[in-house]
Amino acid sequence: MKQPASAKNSNSKSKATIDRLPLYFRTLRLAQDEGIDIISSEELGRRLGITPEQIRKDLASFGQFGKKGVGYYVNELKRNVGDILGLNRHWNIAIVGIGHLGVALANFQNFVTLGFNLVALFDQDPNVIGTRVNHVKVEDTKNLKSIVKERRIQIGIIAVPAAFAQEVADQLVDAGLRGIWNFAPVKIEVPDTIKIVNEDLSIGLSSLSYHITHE
Amino acid sequence: MKQPASAKNSNSKSKATIDRLPLYFRTLRLAQDEGIDIISSEELGRRLGITPEQIRKDLASFGQFGKKGVGYYVNELKRNVGDILGLNRHWNIAIVGIGHLGVALANFQNFVTLGFNLVALFDQDPNVIGTRVNHVKVEDTKNLKSIVKERRIQIGIIAVPAAFAQEVADQLVDAGLRGIWNFAPVKIEVPDTIKIVNEDLSIGLSSLSYHITHE
Repeated sequence: MKQPASAKNSNSKSKATIDRLPLYFRTLRLAQDEGIDIISSEELGRRLGITPEQIRKDLASFGQFGKKGVGYYVNELKRNVGDILGLNRHWNIAIVGIGHLGVALANFQNFVTLGFNLVALFDQDPNVIGTRVNHVKVEDTKNLKSIVKERRIQIGIIAVPAAFAQEVADQLVDAGLRGIWNFAPVKIEVPDTIKIVNEDLSIGLSSLSYHITHE
Repeated sequence: MKQPASAKNSNSKSKATIDRLPLYFRTLRLAQDEGIDIISSEELGRRLGITPEQIRKDLASFGQFGKKGVGYYVNELKRNVGDILGLNRHWNIAIVGIGHLGVALANFQNFVTLGFNLVALFDQDPNVIGTRVNHVKVEDTKNLKSIVKERRIQIGIIAVPAAFAQEVADQLVDAGLRGIWNFAPVKIEVPDTIKIVNEDLSIGLSSLSYHITHE
């Protein structure tokens, strides 16, 4: 679950609705892969553990989708939800910190599928600088600012140890990007104009722990 | 955001409430680190982008927490939410697939903080078997079943490529564990008795994309 630093929502959609959109997109993508043409809100609900009423309400807040008594056309709805999410805009992204996590993220095929272009990798370790991951060359973090500007990078992924995360965030903000996806387990301060999503991997494990405890 | 395969909820809490618990826990942990003793539902809400009313309602569904006009005692509430989540039970966990993602997860300090014990690592690559990550030896996946039983492993983390994920899940289920945390970008089928949480990293990036698009 993600928490953008700014709770101000665009338009009047609730934060909860917006947080569910990527889940809808993901489920539609999987349904598409399975060759499903039409999907009901009931089936979507079953796959997501969300009530069909909630799904219909969420989607209706963005426009008129689906056909009463028929369901949603998977391809069409996926395209629409993707447009709402701003996917297919071909955002340029960069990863800072090319340790194991950074390499795993750089190799993540789904980013490409979603239309994100990985255009830069940064590290400060001389042994790592100059190597290539997924065909992208690792560059010295000290050149971050000029490269972010030059390659019009809009989203930066922070995969450095906690102790360096704020410093990297400051550099990214200074370089003028618009969003930060932070994997460092630490709170990062950024101006209100920058969107930040904190990825906390312990949330998945905590959720599992709850369900096993209470099953 | 996580989607346990089974939408059946323990007791009568809504799935949305349960999904928010790890977020509350995380925010309380950060507040504790900052040395904050008492926190209001307004401040929790501000940090999470959730309304104070929702927070009070969620927490009240689990018991009587906090003091009217004062707020919540951070340490106490964190302990209580941790108990509800089943943390501090010292679950034994194993990671299957010791590529970059597996190594990053094995080194993740927060698991220890949350009371998860990493007791086994598995891979099928002879070059990886026998090496150690975070003091834990990597063992051959072909011995998975006996080791999972022997070390009473309750939670398995799947960090193998998509093509191998179902096979690994079958082995884990066969070995008798209770929960699976799946990082492979593929749908895994498990019996209803096994809890599964699918981690989809593209959700974080999609969420960021939405907020940048609509800012």
